[in-house]
Amino acid sequence: MKIKIKQRELSKHINIVQKSISSRTTMQILDGILLEAKKDKLKLTGTDLELSIESFVDCEIIEEGSIVVNSRIFGDIIKKLENDLVTITVDKTNINIKCENSEFNISGNSGEDYPDLPLVVERDSFNIPMDIFKTVIKKTVFATTADETRPTLTGVLVEIENRFISFIALDGYRLAFKRLPINTDANTKMIIPGRSLNEINKILEEKEEDLNISVSPSHIIVNLGSTTIYSRLLEGPFFNYKDIIRKEHKTIVKVKKQELQNSLERASLLAKEEKANLVKLSLIDNTLNIKSNTEVGNVFESIDAQADGEDVNIAFNSRYIIEGIKAIDDEEIKLNFMGSLNPCIINGLEDEDYTYLVLPVRLAQDDF
Amino acid sequence: MKIKIKQRELSKHINIVQKSISSRTTMQILDGILLEAKKDKLKLTGTDLELSIESFVDCEIIEEGSIVVNSRIFGDIIKKLENDLVTITVDKTNINIKCENSEFNISGNSGEDYPDLPLVVERDSFNIPMDIFKTVIKKTVFATTADETRPTLTGVLVEIENRFISFIALDGYRLAFKRLPINTDANTKMIIPGRSLNEINKILEEKEEDLNISVSPSHIIVNLGSTTIYSRLLEGPFFNYKDIIRKEHKTIVKVKKQELQNSLERASLLAKEEKANLVKLSLIDNTLNIKSNTEVGNVFESIDAQADGEDVNIAFNSRYIIEGIKAIDDEEIKLNFMGSLNPCIINGLEDEDYTYLVLPVRLAQDDF
Repeated sequence: MKIKIKQRELSKHINIVQKSISSRTTMQILDGILLEAKKDKLKLTGTDLELSIESFVDCEIIEEGSIVVNSRIFGDIIKKLENDLVTITVDKTNINIKCENSEFNISGNSGEDYPDLPLVVERDSFNIPMDIFKTVIKKTVFATTADETRPTLTGVLVEIENRFISFIALDGYRLAFKRLPINTDANTKMIIPGRSLNEINKILEEKEEDLNISVSPSHIIVNLGSTTIYSRLLEGPFFNYKDIIRKEHKTIVKVKKQELQNSLERASLLAKEEKANLVKLSLIDNTLNIKSNTEVGNVFESIDAQADGEDVNIAFNSRYIIEGIKAIDDEEIKLNFMGSLNPCIINGLEDEDYTYLVLPVRLAQDDF
Repeated sequence: MKIKIKQRELSKHINIVQKSISSRTTMQILDGILLEAKKDKLKLTGTDLELSIESFVDCEIIEEGSIVVNSRIFGDIIKKLENDLVTITVDKTNINIKCENSEFNISGNSGEDYPDLPLVVERDSFNIPMDIFKTVIKKTVFATTADETRPTLTGVLVEIENRFISFIALDGYRLAFKRLPINTDANTKMIIPGRSLNEINKILEEKEEDLNISVSPSHIIVNLGSTTIYSRLLEGPFFNYKDIIRKEHKTIVKVKKQELQNSLERASLLAKEEKANLVKLSLIDNTLNIKSNTEVGNVFESIDAQADGEDVNIAFNSRYIIEGIKAIDDEEIKLNFMGSLNPCIINGLEDEDYTYLVLPVRLAQDDF
C-alpha cells in the first residue's frame, strides 16, 4: 500500500475514528485503526465491537492495500507532522510515514487480522437535524445508569411512533424524557448504549444539517457523509416508564430556573461528595424554602415561587434534582408535586416536550 | 466579629490566599484561612509555614474580631453566593454567612489558635516589573529538581550584584540562567523555593507595574499593594554554576527555533513516557539530523542549520532539551557545542541574557 494524503484531513478523521477505540480493550488488534486504500479513498475503521466507526478521506493512491496501525501512536505522529502532504508506504508490516523532512517507521499488523464489522440489514431509516440530535443526547443520556447489572438502563430508549420520536433514560432515581415530531412512517423502538451516544455527540457538529439514521434489528447506523457510525443496540425489556409520568398534580410551583439552580447548588455545597446529599424543599404559600443540614454546617435558601395547590415538604438527593434542572433551557420551570412520597415532575414553561422526573427521599414530616 | 463585604472582592482575595494553603497539611488549623476584621479592612491570612499570604479587603465593620474558617468550604460558599453584599457574623466559633436569600452556618476555630507568621526583618529591597518577574519565573523554575534529597536545588538561586539580578535553576541534568539589569545598590543572594515561585506566578498579573520585593535573612517578601506574600528561603550552598557556563565552543549552530522544537517533539513521540527518551543529533555540514530509535519504531528528522566549527554527534534526553528550547522566545537560536561529552549551551539569537545548558547522554560514536 502506498498513498499521499493531506495531513490535516487525515488527522481530523483519525480523531473521529478514535472515538470508537477503547483504552481498556483486551484484544490487542482493537487498539488499532484499520487503514484500507482503495479507489482514491483511504478508509479508516475503528471498533470496540460495540461501537464502530468508518471514515473516508480523499487521497492519491499509488498502490492499494491495507494495514492495522496502533491508534494512539499513529494519531500522535500524524497530528505532529507539518501541514503538508503525507506519504504512507506499507511494506509487509512496516509502515513508513514521510512528510517534509520527517520520516517515521513503525510496525503494524496485517489488515486480514482485523475483525469484520457486523453485517447490518437496514430496517427503518429517518432524518434528524444534527444540532437537535446533539441537544436530545445532552438532555437524556446523563440519566442512564452506570450499573452494569441493569444493562438496558445503561442505554437510552428511542421510540418512533405516529410521527413522533421519544428518547427516555432512567436509572431508578430519576427519568429524562424528550419528544420530537419526526418525518417518518416508521414505528420502531430500540435501546442505544449511553456510551455510544456520548461518543456520537463528540463527533456531531452544531449544525442544522440533517443526519440520516438507519436501524437494523441489532444496530443503529448514523450516517454523516464521509463518516458512518455503527452502534450495537441493547437487548431486553426496558422499564415501563409510561405509568410513572402522571398527569395529575396536587401542587404546581412555578419558579425562575436559574434562581432555583443556584439555590440548590449552594444548598449542596456543604455535603461531602461521597454521601447522598439531601436537600429539603418546603413550599409555604408563595415561597420555596430549601434547607440542608450536614456535619459541616447548615444552609437555608428561599426563593419566590408562584404556587397553585397545597403546601408541600419534600426531600431530594441534590445531585439528581440539580442535573435535571440544568438540562432545561427555559427561563421558568414548573415543579409538579403529588405529596412528599411521589416523584416530582419538572418541565420548562415553554418546552412541554421535555420532562424530568425525580424520586423524593422519604423523610418523616418532623424532619423538615 | 461582624462585617459586610462585597462578594466578588472577597472571593477574589480568598482565591489569592488559598495559593498558600497545602492540601497535604497535617495540622488541621492550616486548612483554614484566618479572618481578622479591624479598622475598615478584613485581613485574610493563609500559610503552609513555608509560603504565607496576607490579603486586605475593604469592608464595613460592625464588630471587630477574628476567626479561622476552612479554606475550601469558605471559598466554595463565597464563590457561589450572588454578587451582592455578604454579611459575616461570628459568634464564638459559629460563622453565619448571609447574602440575599441565602444563609449558611458553619463552624470555625478561634483565631488565637492560628500560628503567628514569622517576624521578618527587612534587609534589602528592590523593584521589578510584574510581567518581567512572571517571565523570569517561567523561564527558570521548570529546571529545579523535585528531588527533596538535594533541597537547595528545589529552589531558584537569585543573585543581585553590580546592578544586575540573576536567576539560576538546575537539577543536575540542565541549567537555566536569566540575567536582568536592576535599579538597586544591594548585593545579595538567596534561594527561593520553586513551589513558592510557582504559586507567586499564579497570583501575579501580566502588568508592567512595578512589584516591590524585600529580603530578610530567612524570607523574601513580595508586596502587591493589598496582598503580601512571604516565602521562607532555602538554606545551604548552591551548586557553583558559574564554572560550567563556558565561553569557548568548538561548534556553533544557528537554527530556527520552532523547526527544531517541532522536530524534537516528533522525535520524542515514539518513546514510552517512563523511559529516558534519547534523541541523537548529528551535524553534517549545514544540516542537523535528529534520530530516535525505540521499541515502537524509529524517526528521522533533518533541518537546515547554519553551522560554524566541526561536525558533531551528540545525544540528549529529549525532555531536557525540548523544555529549554520552549523557554526561549526568539525566532532563531544558537546551539553551542564542545564535542559530544560536554554540555550544550543554548541561547536565543536576540536575548543573550537567557542561557539554557543541557548535559548530553554519553553514547559510543558507533551508536549514531
